[in-house]
Amino acid sequence: MTALENLTKLLSRLPGVGPKSASRIAFSLIKTPKDYNRLLAEDIATIQEKVHPCSICGSFTETDPCPVCTDTTRDRSMLCIVEQPQDVMTIQASGAYNGLFHVLGGAINPLNGVGPEDLSFGKLLERIEAGSFSEIIIATNPTEEGDTTALYIRHVLKSHPELNLTRLASGLPIGGDLEYADRTTLTRSFRGRVKL
Amino acid sequence: MTALENLTKLLSRLPGVGPKSASRIAFSLIKTPKDYNRLLAEDIATIQEKVHPCSICGSFTETDPCPVCTDTTRDRSMLCIVEQPQDVMTIQASGAYNGLFHVLGGAINPLNGVGPEDLSFGKLLERIEAGSFSEIIIATNPTEEGDTTALYIRHVLKSHPELNLTRLASGLPIGGDLEYADRTTLTRSFRGRVKL
Repeated sequence: MTALENLTKLLSRLPGVGPKSASRIAFSLIKTPKDYNRLLAEDIATIQEKVHPCSICGSFTETDPCPVCTDTTRDRSMLCIVEQPQDVMTIQASGAYNGLFHVLGGAINPLNGVGPEDLSFGKLLERIEAGSFSEIIIATNPTEEGDTTALYIRHVLKSHPELNLTRLASGLPIGGDLEYADRTTLTRSFRGRVKL
Repeated sequence: MTALENLTKLLSRLPGVGPKSASRIAFSLIKTPKDYNRLLAEDIATIQEKVHPCSICGSFTETDPCPVCTDTTRDRSMLCIVEQPQDVMTIQASGAYNGLFHVLGGAINPLNGVGPEDLSFGKLLERIEAGSFSEIIIATNPTEEGDTTALYIRHVLKSHPELNLTRLASGLPIGGDLEYADRTTLTRSFRGRVKL
């Protein structure tokens, strides 16, 4: 196998990168400034040494605990439960939320063999029992697995009726067009319709 | 800037990789097997040392001349002119052609300041004068720049009326649907219609 084919094959294992885009990226890397290749290679080789899961919330961080967990200006009465570390970054970038996070590490998916015991529910309960949360926001994905996980969280937190348990609203994406909404999204939008 | 942000920023400079997919790739690189990161980093850092343009045809190769130029089983009476080195790989992968190649290094694009003098026309003429080609296939892209370049090639090769000059057919992509064809493609399909 040639060096180009080798690089293309490695690149095509990245998420969202198919054989065609892998080839395009590989060719572009022949023509990029040499410094860029050096920096990118260095970052790829060292990222796993630099970034670790936060021992409190489970999101990726270079310091432990992570900047969000140690930020005293955040609302410590709210806990937002997400599936993946990247979800924390997405929500942080939106500026829509100012409380704390808990990363489950995935969603319940019996078909893929992912059960509750594979996710950080034990730690979640520990945090809830030790903390002073008044609201728990479930921000799992609006998918079958996310729904199952949300139901499971509700089940697990039955022993804490003092907590206000909510889930992110589902419906039409802002800026989208009714015409392009799929049936499930549309059904959810009707069910979750709000009074004006 | 954190290590993750840094890596995301570098990744988003790759072709076809936007900020969202760069972030997705960066996160995935935290969880990939460590060996994979090492190999990918190594390949990215060394690809420019390993791969060079072929001194004859201009396509990327690890040996000079490239395996296509030195392959004695190929039809040396045919020369296919392409814009970029990756076009050679695309055509090679298709198995549709068994002659030689010439890479121009781009297409004529006055708006971007790319004129004929920036492309390898000098070498093309040298090869044609030294070689024993009977057919020249123009395989520039079916774009405005590719069309301009094709016209320019025709102009340059006027002094060689012995050469059979052809261009790849344009029309409906196989497996596509008339409904999704754009107007220009459809117009070209009508113009280039073939007798059954």
